[in-house]
Amino acid sequence: MKQAGCPLCDAAGGHIVFAADKFRLVRADEKGYPAFYRVIWTEHVREFSDLGPDDRSLCMDAVVAVEAVLREHLKPAKVNLATLGNMVPHVHWHVIARFDWDTHFPSPVWASAQREAPAPALARVESLLPALETEMTLLLAREREA
Amino acid sequence: MKQAGCPLCDAAGGHIVFAADKFRLVRADEKGYPAFYRVIWTEHVREFSDLGPDDRSLCMDAVVAVEAVLREHLKPAKVNLATLGNMVPHVHWHVIARFDWDTHFPSPVWASAQREAPAPALARVESLLPALETEMTLLLAREREA
Repeated sequence: MKQAGCPLCDAAGGHIVFAADKFRLVRADEKGYPAFYRVIWTEHVREFSDLGPDDRSLCMDAVVAVEAVLREHLKPAKVNLATLGNMVPHVHWHVIARFDWDTHFPSPVWASAQREAPAPALARVESLLPALETEMTLLLAREREA
Repeated sequence: MKQAGCPLCDAAGGHIVFAADKFRLVRADEKGYPAFYRVIWTEHVREFSDLGPDDRSLCMDAVVAVEAVLREHLKPAKVNLATLGNMVPHVHWHVIARFDWDTHFPSPVWASAQREAPAPALARVESLLPALETEMTLLLAREREA
């Protein structure tokens, strides 16, 4: 069911990396965070606990697959996972690779920025995204078949 | 395994509401957020994807139980879930009931505060915590037995 006026019902919410029936993975393209992904539930569901156990597992397995690929390819200082939805109450998980050089580290990305991210480090991460997204796609497609 | 110097290995990390072998639930007692809970994994594990499938399910079932009780008792505007760990890289989930009157709403709690929270609203939430925590304890104990 779509909700009128919901930005995640009306639009992709980022660059689509993978789409299944129940969820899609998008690259958020947030400024200064090249490796910021979102797992967006297809149905307009407000809270994570509105999903049944099987759907929650499906959703978190996708989140964990994205995290695992980010770790393998980027060796981030930390991965941040969050579902907030105060402004867009449609279940979506932020999966963000964090680096000690990024604009906010070690603060959450929603805090005040502490620095500018160095262009060479950003460019290096960006150069790794195509291979990483290919692997995310393969992994998510495999999970879907399992 | 404990990690020397890790604040979540060395201390409870809040007021303990429930403790099982593999995780504990604490009330964070963050200023202005009376209904801010944390599900803290017992073992010193850095990333959520370091846990195996069964442990991830156990952990998320606990997170979801806490969310469900918060929703039932407090009717929050939204529940926020997050595992960040940039400063304390030991898996812990923030489970936060958000209200349209709280200090940061609709921003994440890690952004800049937008207002002071009204004392009567805070007091009302605080008055509901004992009953709510009793139910969380019962629910988590039941899940553990299942």
